[in-house]
Amino acid sequence: MPKLVDHDEQRQAIAEAAIAVIDAGGIEGARLRDVAEAAGVTTGAVTHYFDGKDAVLEAAMGEIVRRILDKQDTAPQPETIADVIDFAAWFLPTDAESRREWRVWIAFWGRAITDARLRALHRGYYDEITGRLAALLRQPDRKGRAMTPRDARQLADAIIAAIDGVGTRAALEADDWSPKRQRETLARLLTPLLAAA
Amino acid sequence: MPKLVDHDEQRQAIAEAAIAVIDAGGIEGARLRDVAEAAGVTTGAVTHYFDGKDAVLEAAMGEIVRRILDKQDTAPQPETIADVIDFAAWFLPTDAESRREWRVWIAFWGRAITDARLRALHRGYYDEITGRLAALLRQPDRKGRAMTPRDARQLADAIIAAIDGVGTRAALEADDWSPKRQRETLARLLTPLLAAA
Repeated sequence: MPKLVDHDEQRQAIAEAAIAVIDAGGIEGARLRDVAEAAGVTTGAVTHYFDGKDAVLEAAMGEIVRRILDKQDTAPQPETIADVIDFAAWFLPTDAESRREWRVWIAFWGRAITDARLRALHRGYYDEITGRLAALLRQPDRKGRAMTPRDARQLADAIIAAIDGVGTRAALEADDWSPKRQRETLARLLTPLLAAA
Repeated sequence: MPKLVDHDEQRQAIAEAAIAVIDAGGIEGARLRDVAEAAGVTTGAVTHYFDGKDAVLEAAMGEIVRRILDKQDTAPQPETIADVIDFAAWFLPTDAESRREWRVWIAFWGRAITDARLRALHRGYYDEITGRLAALLRQPDRKGRAMTPRDARQLADAIIAAIDGVGTRAALEADDWSPKRQRETLARLLTPLLAAA
Protein backbone atom coordinates (compact mmCIF):
# COMPACT_ATOMS: atom_id res chain seq x y z
CA MET A 1 0.00 0.00 0.00
CA PRO A 2 1.53 3.35 -0.96
CA LYS A 3 2.49 5.70 1.80
CA LEU A 4 -0.12 8.37 2.38
CA VAL A 5 1.51 11.75 1.98
CA ASP A 6 0.06 14.93 3.31
CA HIS A 7 0.09 17.14 0.22
CA ASP A 8 0.12 20.42 2.12
CA GLU A 9 3.04 19.22 4.22
CA GLN A 10 5.00 18.18 1.14
CA ARG A 11 4.31 21.48 -0.64
CA GLN A 12 5.45 23.32 2.46
CA ALA A 13 8.64 21.21 2.70
CA ILE A 14 9.40 22.03 -0.94
CA ALA A 15 8.76 25.76 -0.38
CA GLU A 16 11.09 25.73 2.63
CA ALA A 17 13.75 23.90 0.63
CA ALA A 18 13.35 26.47 -2.18
CA ILE A 19 14.15 29.28 0.28
CA ALA A 20 17.43 27.57 1.22
CA VAL A 21 18.37 26.82 -2.40
CA ILE A 22 17.63 30.36 -3.65
CA ASP A 23 19.54 31.78 -0.69
CA ALA A 24 22.57 29.66 -1.54
CA GLY A 25 22.75 30.22 -5.28
CA GLY A 26 20.31 32.93 -6.30
CA ILE A 27 17.18 32.45 -8.37
CA GLU A 28 18.95 32.02 -11.70
CA GLY A 29 21.09 29.23 -10.29
CA ALA A 30 18.28 27.39 -8.50
CA ARG A 31 17.54 24.03 -10.13
CA LEU A 32 14.47 21.93 -9.47
CA ARG A 33 16.63 18.93 -8.62
CA ASP A 34 18.52 20.94 -5.97
CA VAL A 35 15.19 21.91 -4.43
CA ALA A 36 14.06 18.27 -4.51
CA GLU A 37 17.30 17.12 -2.88
CA ALA A 38 17.07 19.78 -0.15
CA ALA A 39 13.43 18.80 0.50
CA GLY A 40 14.29 15.10 0.56
CA VAL A 41 11.85 14.30 -2.26
CA THR A 42 12.23 13.25 -5.90
CA THR A 43 12.47 15.82 -8.70
CA GLY A 44 9.21 14.26 -9.92
CA ALA A 45 7.54 15.22 -6.64
CA VAL A 46 8.62 18.85 -7.16
CA THR A 47 7.30 18.96 -10.71
CA HIS A 48 4.12 17.24 -9.52
CA TYR A 49 3.35 20.16 -7.23
CA PHE A 50 5.03 23.00 -9.09
CA ASP A 51 4.80 23.82 -12.74
CA GLY A 52 8.46 24.80 -13.25
CA LYS A 53 11.05 27.06 -11.62
CA ASP A 54 8.91 30.18 -11.47
CA ALA A 55 6.25 28.30 -9.51
CA VAL A 56 8.85 27.09 -6.99
CA LEU A 57 10.17 30.64 -6.58
CA GLU A 58 6.64 31.88 -6.03
CA ALA A 59 6.08 29.15 -3.45
CA ALA A 60 9.25 30.26 -1.63
CA MET A 61 8.01 33.86 -1.54
CA GLY A 62 4.52 32.68 -0.57
CA GLU A 63 6.03 30.79 2.37
CA ILE A 64 7.96 33.87 3.54
CA VAL A 65 4.84 36.03 3.27
CA ARG A 66 2.86 33.37 5.18
CA ARG A 67 5.41 33.64 8.01
CA ILE A 68 5.11 37.45 8.03
CA LEU A 69 1.31 37.30 8.14
CA ASP A 70 1.53 34.67 10.91
CA LYS A 71 3.73 36.99 12.96
CA GLN A 72 1.23 39.79 12.39
CA ASP A 73 -1.73 37.59 13.38
CA THR A 74 -0.16 36.35 16.58
CA ALA A 75 1.33 39.70 17.67
CA PRO A 76 -0.29 41.31 20.69
CA GLN A 77 -1.93 44.67 20.01
CA PRO A 78 0.91 47.21 20.43
CA GLU A 79 0.01 49.61 23.22
CA THR A 80 2.97 51.99 23.24
CA ILE A 81 5.47 53.45 20.75
CA ALA A 82 8.07 51.02 22.12
CA ASP A 83 5.68 48.13 21.39
CA VAL A 84 5.28 49.18 17.76
CA ILE A 85 9.06 49.51 17.36
CA ASP A 86 9.64 46.08 18.92
CA PHE A 87 7.05 44.65 16.59
CA ALA A 88 8.62 46.29 13.51
CA ALA A 89 12.14 45.20 14.56
CA TRP A 90 10.90 41.62 14.63
CA PHE A 91 10.91 41.67 10.80
CA LEU A 92 14.55 42.78 10.41
CA PRO A 93 17.29 40.35 9.27
CA THR A 94 18.72 39.79 12.74
CA ASP A 95 19.26 36.02 12.75
CA ALA A 96 20.19 33.31 10.24
CA GLU A 97 16.58 32.46 9.39
CA SER A 98 15.44 36.03 8.78
CA ARG A 99 18.62 36.89 6.86
CA ARG A 100 17.83 33.97 4.53
CA GLU A 101 14.27 35.26 4.05
CA TRP A 102 15.53 38.76 3.27
CA ARG A 103 18.02 37.51 0.69
CA VAL A 104 15.29 35.54 -1.10
CA TRP A 105 13.03 38.57 -0.92
CA ILE A 106 15.73 40.79 -2.52
CA ALA A 107 16.37 38.15 -5.21
CA PHE A 108 12.63 38.21 -5.94
CA TRP A 109 12.76 42.02 -6.30
CA GLY A 110 15.67 41.68 -8.71
CA ARG A 111 13.59 39.42 -10.90
CA ALA A 112 10.33 41.34 -10.47
CA ILE A 113 11.70 44.50 -12.09
CA THR A 114 11.45 42.79 -15.49
CA ASP A 115 8.47 40.49 -14.79
CA ALA A 116 5.00 42.03 -14.58
CA ARG A 117 3.47 38.88 -13.10
CA LEU A 118 5.92 38.87 -10.18
CA ARG A 119 5.25 42.58 -9.65
CA ALA A 120 1.52 41.85 -9.46
CA LEU A 121 2.21 39.17 -6.83
CA HIS A 122 4.45 41.58 -4.94
CA ARG A 123 1.75 44.23 -4.95
CA GLY A 124 -0.72 41.71 -3.49
CA TYR A 125 1.74 40.75 -0.73
CA TYR A 126 2.40 44.36 0.26
CA ASP A 127 -1.29 45.18 0.16
CA GLU A 128 -2.06 42.38 2.60
CA ILE A 129 0.89 43.10 4.91
CA THR A 130 0.12 46.85 4.93
CA GLY A 131 -3.57 46.24 5.59
CA ARG A 132 -2.86 44.02 8.59
CA LEU A 133 -0.32 46.44 10.02
CA ALA A 134 -2.79 49.31 9.58
CA ALA A 135 -5.43 47.30 11.46
CA LEU A 136 -2.96 46.71 14.32
CA LEU A 137 -2.20 50.45 14.48
CA ARG A 138 -5.85 51.51 14.63
CA GLN A 139 -6.19 51.20 18.38
CA PRO A 140 -7.71 54.07 20.32
CA ASP A 141 -5.01 56.50 21.44
CA ARG A 142 -4.69 57.88 24.95
CA LYS A 143 -7.51 60.31 24.28
CA GLY A 144 -9.75 57.42 23.25
CA ARG A 145 -9.75 58.28 19.52
CA ALA A 146 -8.91 55.65 16.94
CA MET A 147 -6.81 56.59 13.90
CA THR A 148 -8.80 56.89 10.66
CA PRO A 149 -8.29 53.94 8.25
CA ARG A 150 -6.54 56.29 5.83
CA ASP A 151 -4.11 57.62 8.45
CA ALA A 152 -3.39 54.09 9.68
CA ARG A 153 -2.68 52.95 6.14
CA GLN A 154 -0.30 55.86 5.47
CA LEU A 155 1.46 55.26 8.77
CA ALA A 156 1.77 51.56 7.87
CA ASP A 157 3.27 52.53 4.47
CA ALA A 158 5.90 54.66 6.22
CA ILE A 159 6.74 51.96 8.81
CA ILE A 160 7.09 49.31 6.09
CA ALA A 161 9.34 51.62 4.04
CA ALA A 162 11.55 52.09 7.12
CA ILE A 163 11.75 48.32 7.70
CA ASP A 164 12.53 47.72 4.00
CA GLY A 165 15.24 50.38 3.90
CA VAL A 166 17.04 49.19 7.03
CA GLY A 167 16.51 45.50 6.24
CA THR A 168 17.81 45.70 2.68
CA ARG A 169 20.96 47.50 3.72
CA ALA A 170 21.52 45.07 6.60
CA ALA A 171 20.92 42.00 4.42
CA LEU A 172 23.50 43.24 1.90
CA GLU A 173 26.03 44.46 4.49
CA ALA A 174 25.49 41.78 7.13
CA ASP A 175 28.95 42.20 8.69
CA ASP A 176 28.47 45.93 9.31
CA TRP A 177 24.85 45.89 10.41
CA SER A 178 24.58 44.13 13.74
CA PRO A 179 21.07 43.53 15.14
CA LYS A 180 21.77 46.43 17.53
CA ARG A 181 22.64 48.86 14.71
CA GLN A 182 19.56 47.76 12.75
CA ARG A 183 17.24 48.27 15.73
CA GLU A 184 18.78 51.64 16.58
CA THR A 185 18.40 52.92 13.02
CA LEU A 186 14.81 51.68 12.85
CA ALA A 187 14.01 53.23 16.24
CA ARG A 188 15.60 56.51 15.13
CA LEU A 189 13.14 56.61 12.22
CA LEU A 190 10.05 55.27 13.98
CA THR A 191 10.19 56.93 17.41
CA PRO A 192 9.58 60.50 16.18
CA LEU A 193 7.22 59.23 13.45
CA LEU A 194 4.99 57.47 15.98
CA ALA A 195 5.21 60.31 18.48
CA ALA A 196 3.94 62.65 15.74
CA ALA A 197 1.16 60.28 14.59
CA MET B 1 44.00 58.53 -40.43
CA PRO B 2 41.87 56.75 -37.84
CA LYS B 3 39.23 58.75 -36.01
CA LEU B 4 40.41 59.88 -32.62
CA VAL B 5 37.97 58.60 -30.02
CA ASP B 6 37.69 59.99 -26.55
CA HIS B 7 38.00 56.86 -24.43
CA ASP B 8 36.21 58.29 -21.41
CA GLU B 9 33.33 59.42 -23.59
CA GLN B 10 33.02 55.98 -25.17
CA ARG B 11 33.16 54.20 -21.79
CA GLN B 12 30.45 56.54 -20.54
CA ALA B 13 28.28 55.93 -23.62
CA ILE B 14 28.60 52.18 -23.05
CA ALA B 15 27.74 52.52 -19.33
CA GLU B 16 24.66 54.58 -20.23
CA ALA B 17 23.62 51.99 -22.82
CA ALA B 18 24.10 49.25 -20.20
CA ILE B 19 21.61 51.00 -17.90
CA ALA B 20 18.97 50.96 -20.66
CA VAL B 21 19.65 47.33 -21.62
CA ILE B 22 19.56 46.04 -18.01
CA ASP B 23 16.40 48.04 -17.40
CA ALA B 24 14.72 46.45 -20.42
CA GLY B 25 15.68 42.82 -19.87
CA GLY B 26 17.27 42.39 -16.45
CA ILE B 27 20.89 41.54 -15.80
CA GLU B 28 20.63 37.87 -16.75
CA GLY B 29 19.19 38.77 -20.13
CA ALA B 30 21.65 41.58 -20.91
CA ARG B 31 23.98 40.64 -23.78
CA LEU B 32 27.14 42.49 -24.71
CA ARG B 33 25.95 42.88 -28.29
CA ASP B 34 22.70 44.53 -27.11
CA VAL B 35 24.77 46.98 -25.08
CA ALA B 36 27.00 47.66 -28.10
CA GLU B 37 23.96 48.22 -30.31
CA ALA B 38 22.35 50.59 -27.81
CA ALA B 39 25.62 52.50 -27.48
CA GLY B 40 26.08 52.66 -31.26
CA VAL B 41 29.47 50.91 -31.10
CA THR B 42 30.75 47.48 -32.15
CA THR B 43 30.65 44.51 -29.76
CA GLY B 44 34.45 44.60 -30.06
CA ALA B 45 34.47 48.12 -28.64
CA VAL B 46 32.50 46.92 -25.61
CA THR B 47 34.84 44.01 -24.99
CA HIS B 48 37.80 46.37 -25.51
CA TYR B 49 36.71 48.48 -22.56
CA PHE B 50 34.92 45.88 -20.42
CA ASP B 51 36.11 42.44 -19.52
CA GLY B 52 32.75 40.67 -19.85
CA LYS B 53 29.17 41.09 -18.67
CA ASP B 54 29.96 41.63 -15.00
CA ALA B 55 32.25 44.54 -15.87
CA VAL B 56 29.49 46.16 -17.96
CA LEU B 57 27.02 45.74 -15.09
CA GLU B 58 29.51 47.32 -12.72
CA ALA B 59 30.02 50.19 -15.15
CA ALA B 60 26.24 50.73 -15.23
CA MET B 61 26.11 50.87 -11.43
CA GLY B 62 29.22 53.05 -11.36
CA GLU B 63 27.51 55.51 -13.71
CA ILE B 64 24.38 55.64 -11.51
CA VAL B 65 26.50 56.21 -8.40
CA ARG B 66 28.45 58.92 -10.25
CA ARG B 67 25.15 60.71 -10.93
CA ILE B 68 24.15 60.43 -7.26
CA LEU B 69 27.49 61.83 -6.09
CA ASP B 70 27.21 64.61 -8.68
CA LYS B 71 23.80 65.57 -7.31
CA GLN B 72 25.25 65.60 -3.80
CA ASP B 73 28.23 67.70 -4.86
CA THR B 74 26.16 70.32 -6.63
CA ALA B 75 23.37 70.52 -4.03
CA PRO B 76 23.21 73.72 -2.01
CA GLN B 77 23.77 73.28 1.72
CA PRO B 78 20.29 72.46 3.11
CA GLU B 79 19.30 75.12 5.62
CA THR B 80 15.91 73.91 6.81
CA ILE B 81 14.10 70.61 7.36
CA ALA B 82 12.16 71.27 4.16
CA ASP B 83 15.47 71.68 2.29
CA VAL B 84 16.72 68.30 3.50
CA ILE B 85 13.43 66.63 2.49
CA ASP B 86 13.52 68.26 -0.95
CA PHE B 87 17.08 67.08 -1.34
CA ALA B 88 16.22 63.49 -0.28
CA ALA B 89 13.15 63.43 -2.54
CA TRP B 90 15.41 64.27 -5.47
CA PHE B 91 16.69 60.67 -5.35
CA LEU B 92 13.27 58.98 -5.57
CA PRO B 93 12.06 57.25 -8.78
CA THR B 94 9.79 60.09 -9.87
CA ASP B 95 10.57 60.30 -13.60
CA ALA B 96 11.52 57.93 -16.42
CA GLU B 97 15.27 58.41 -15.93
CA SER B 98 15.30 57.85 -12.17
CA ARG B 99 12.90 54.89 -12.44
CA ARG B 100 15.35 53.29 -14.85
CA GLU B 101 18.21 53.87 -12.40
CA TRP B 102 16.22 52.36 -9.53
CA ARG B 103 15.34 49.26 -11.52
CA VAL B 104 19.02 48.70 -12.38
CA TRP B 105 19.93 49.28 -8.74
CA ILE B 106 17.37 46.67 -7.58
CA ALA B 107 18.63 44.20 -10.22
CA PHE B 108 22.14 44.77 -8.84
CA TRP B 109 20.88 44.01 -5.30
CA GLY B 110 19.28 40.81 -6.58
CA ARG B 111 22.62 39.66 -7.93
CA ALA B 112 24.69 40.96 -5.02
CA ILE B 113 22.99 38.67 -2.49
CA THR B 114 24.96 35.74 -3.93
CA ASP B 115 28.09 37.63 -5.08
CA ALA B 116 30.55 38.83 -2.44
CA ARG B 117 32.42 41.05 -4.91
CA LEU B 118 29.26 42.96 -5.82
CA ARG B 119 28.43 43.30 -2.12
CA ALA B 120 31.89 44.79 -1.51
CA LEU B 121 31.25 47.30 -4.32
CA HIS B 122 27.83 48.08 -2.87
CA ARG B 123 29.35 48.70 0.56
CA GLY B 124 31.82 51.15 -0.98
CA TYR B 125 29.03 53.01 -2.81
CA TYR B 126 26.93 53.36 0.34
CA ASP B 127 29.92 54.40 2.39
CA GLU B 128 30.68 57.23 -0.03
CA ILE B 129 27.04 58.34 -0.41
CA THR B 130 26.47 58.24 3.36
CA GLY B 131 29.68 60.15 4.06
CA ARG B 132 28.76 62.96 1.68
CA LEU B 133 25.23 63.21 3.04
CA ALA B 134 26.60 63.32 6.59
CA ALA B 135 28.93 66.17 5.58
CA LEU B 136 25.95 68.08 4.11
CA LEU B 137 24.00 67.60 7.35
CA ARG B 138 26.80 68.85 9.61
CA GLN B 139 25.88 72.50 9.38
CA PRO B 140 25.62 74.57 12.55
CA ASP B 141 22.05 74.54 13.90
CA ARG B 142 20.16 77.63 15.03
CA LYS B 143 22.08 77.64 18.29
CA GLY B 144 25.33 77.64 16.33
CA ARG B 145 26.30 74.07 17.23
CA ALA B 146 27.30 71.61 14.51
CA MET B 147 26.20 67.98 14.72
CA THR B 148 28.96 65.55 15.76
CA PRO B 149 30.33 63.44 12.88
CA ARG B 150 28.86 60.33 14.52
CA ASP B 151 25.38 61.85 14.86
CA ALA B 152 25.50 63.13 11.27
CA ARG B 153 26.47 59.68 10.03
CA GLN B 154 23.65 57.97 11.95
CA LEU B 155 21.16 60.53 10.71
CA ALA B 156 22.43 59.96 7.15
CA ASP B 157 21.98 56.18 7.62
CA ALA B 158 18.36 56.72 8.67
CA ILE B 159 17.62 59.14 5.79
CA ILE B 160 19.13 56.74 3.24
CA ALA B 161 17.11 53.84 4.66
CA ALA B 162 13.94 55.94 4.27
CA ILE B 163 14.81 56.81 0.65
CA ASP B 164 15.61 53.15 -0.11
CA GLY B 165 12.39 51.87 1.46
CA VAL B 166 10.13 54.33 -0.35
CA GLY B 167 12.09 54.15 -3.61
CA THR B 168 12.13 50.35 -3.81
CA ARG B 169 8.40 50.09 -3.23
CA ALA B 170 7.72 52.85 -5.76
CA ALA B 171 10.01 51.33 -8.39
CA LEU B 172 8.22 47.98 -8.07
CA GLU B 173 4.69 49.44 -7.87
CA ALA B 174 5.13 52.38 -10.22
CA ASP B 175 1.42 52.65 -11.08
CA ASP B 176 0.40 53.00 -7.43
CA TRP B 177 3.21 55.25 -6.23
CA SER B 178 2.88 58.65 -7.86
CA PRO B 179 5.66 61.18 -7.23
CA LYS B 180 3.26 62.87 -4.81
CA ARG B 181 2.67 59.70 -2.77
CA GLN B 182 6.41 59.00 -2.68
CA ARG B 183 7.24 62.51 -1.46
CA GLU B 184 4.47 62.45 1.14
CA THR B 185 5.62 59.11 2.54
CA LEU B 186 9.23 60.28 2.63
CA ALA B 187 8.24 63.56 4.29
CA ARG B 188 6.15 61.66 6.83
CA LEU B 189 9.29 59.74 7.84
CA LEU B 190 11.81 62.57 7.62
CA THR B 191 9.96 65.57 9.05
CA PRO B 192 9.73 64.25 12.64
CA LEU B 193 13.18 62.60 12.32
CA LEU B 194 14.83 65.89 11.39
CA ALA B 195 12.84 67.90 13.93
CA ALA B 196 14.13 65.52 16.62
CA ALA B 197 17.76 65.60 15.38
